[in-house]
Amino acid sequence: MAYSIDKLQIGDSAEFSKTVTEADIYGFASITGDFNPIHIDESYAQKSIFKSPIAHGILSAGFISAVIGNKLPGPGTVYLKQELNFRFPIHIGDTITARVEIIDVDVAAQVVTLLTTCRNQNEVVVLDGQALVKLPRSSPK
Amino acid sequence: MAYSIDKLQIGDSAEFSKTVTEADIYGFASITGDFNPIHIDESYAQKSIFKSPIAHGILSAGFISAVIGNKLPGPGTVYLKQELNFRFPIHIGDTITARVEIIDVDVAAQVVTLLTTCRNQNEVVVLDGQALVKLPRSSPK
Amino acid sequence: MAYSIDKLQIGDSAEFSKTVTEADIYGFASITGDFNPIHIDESYAQKSIFKSPIAHGILSAGFISAVIGNKLPGPGTVYLKQELNFRFPIHIGDTITARVEIIDVDVAAQVVTLLTTCRNQNEVVVLDGQALVKLPRSSPK
Amino acid sequence: MAYSIDKLQIGDSAEFSKTVTEADIYGFASITGDFNPIHIDESYAQKSIFKSPIAHGILSAGFISAVIGNKLPGPGTVYLKQELNFRFPIHIGDTITARVEIIDVDVAAQVVTLLTTCRNQNEVVVLDGQALVKLPRSSPK
Repeated sequence: MAYSIDKLQIGDSAEFSKTVTEADIYGFASITGDFNPIHIDESYAQKSIFKSPIAHGILSAGFISAVIGNKLPGPGTVYLKQELNFRFPIHIGDTITARVEIIDVDVAAQVVTLLTTCRNQNEVVVLDGQALVKLPRSSPK
Repeated sequence: MAYSIDKLQIGDSAEFSKTVTEADIYGFASITGDFNPIHIDESYAQKSIFKSPIAHGILSAGFISAVIGNKLPGPGTVYLKQELNFRFPIHIGDTITARVEIIDVDVAAQVVTLLTTCRNQNEVVVLDGQALVKLPRSSPK
Repeated sequence: MAYSIDKLQIGDSAEFSKTVTEADIYGFASITGDFNPIHIDESYAQKSIFKSPIAHGILSAGFISAVIGNKLPGPGTVYLKQELNFRFPIHIGDTITARVEIIDVDVAAQVVTLLTTCRNQNEVVVLDGQALVKLPRSSPK
Repeated sequence: MAYSIDKLQIGDSAEFSKTVTEADIYGFASITGDFNPIHIDESYAQKSIFKSPIAHGILSAGFISAVIGNKLPGPGTVYLKQELNFRFPIHIGDTITARVEIIDVDVAAQVVTLLTTCRNQNEVVVLDGQALVKLPRSSPK
């Protein structure tokens, strides 16, 4: 269950890490329909500035969603808003660590503002931005 | 291949539609690790304000990525920035139409600003926001 | 990261819930090669005592593994032993809640004994047993 | 169809082999929700005692389920009980051979006791234990 709003404090943070595989990229393409060749065409990608296929930016945004939905604020949390700045490409085999940190808590509205970041295994920021999420008003019973 | 920047005009638009299935939601959970019960726990979802499992908001953002990467500006386009406002829940069986419309073209920087929207089969806006994307500077040959 | 052994107490517990879909059962069959017709042959299952396809018992054991690996003792925990009693069939659409509860802590060996249970949405025990797990001796840095 | 109970003898055995791929491990994580970093985080696994990602123990238990459900006693067999001792890690690319051998037959109860083992390509036992399974009382017609 999500933390209740009075348990959440500015500075609280949580993380989730996952290595991105070729199967992830193909799976993401299949669900969304995004068959941009920079993701799923090796010949094209080799000739591009990326040199090899890169993950969909939105896939890495999903890792932020995972931290929010699994950990902080946790199960039941509802997404209101997300800003995403795609800073650096993600290649197959990169391990991405998504991190959320609370930067504002609106108790009355049950809304929390989060700093959201993804880094690769070399600590390079691949994605950053902010999110607004709403806690479940009362837990399901 | 993506359109070249001088072919793109303010007001140009493109769309992509897909019905969201249970398999899409479970697949998205599996790739991102987001097992928030509002997506994959029917008992929990029934007791929540949503009454049945809803799709991950970021999944619908993937449909916008699909329009950008497949159609406008098209193959090779690189995502720089995306703002997402999640307006309305998406349930299993909803058909989502993602739409992008050019609202600014920066020829020198090869950067295009897009209005990005997802609607469901009842024309309800489920997601809106803006995106910044960059054209491939020269096409791979 | 997993809890350190001195933070773990008898009686500590954690849970994870997921609705089992047809896609889960087919996915599990494809990974393991278990094509027992009671799981993937609707005609056969209709004529059996189960009346419709049931999930692989070992699939539900995976939900226990999920609680152990995600929550308690948490990331990095290594499985040593698991006893499984399959008590009741799981059908497509059932929501399974896996629960682990600490019943013994061996600080010297860094080993924890867990009571492990899966219940369906009607609180019927579908699986029970015990597990032995080992904490990561020192966290990776 | 499963063998009928009077055809089963102590000492009867059957096997199934499969190479474990990265896609298997990610697929198993996706179905069960077990995102323990020792399975899906290459950076974490490299720093652990395992040096590279390992398969979920329960995944290899699935291979035993496959031999039972496909071969011995065969289609329709119902799992009652399984004890699992995880003896050795399974890495991507390992070929696992699951073997079941009948060690007891209870004709009246239609229940069979099996010795269950998984070995890797170097004949190292990665998993052992015993299972109790029940034959379908009468075959579906």
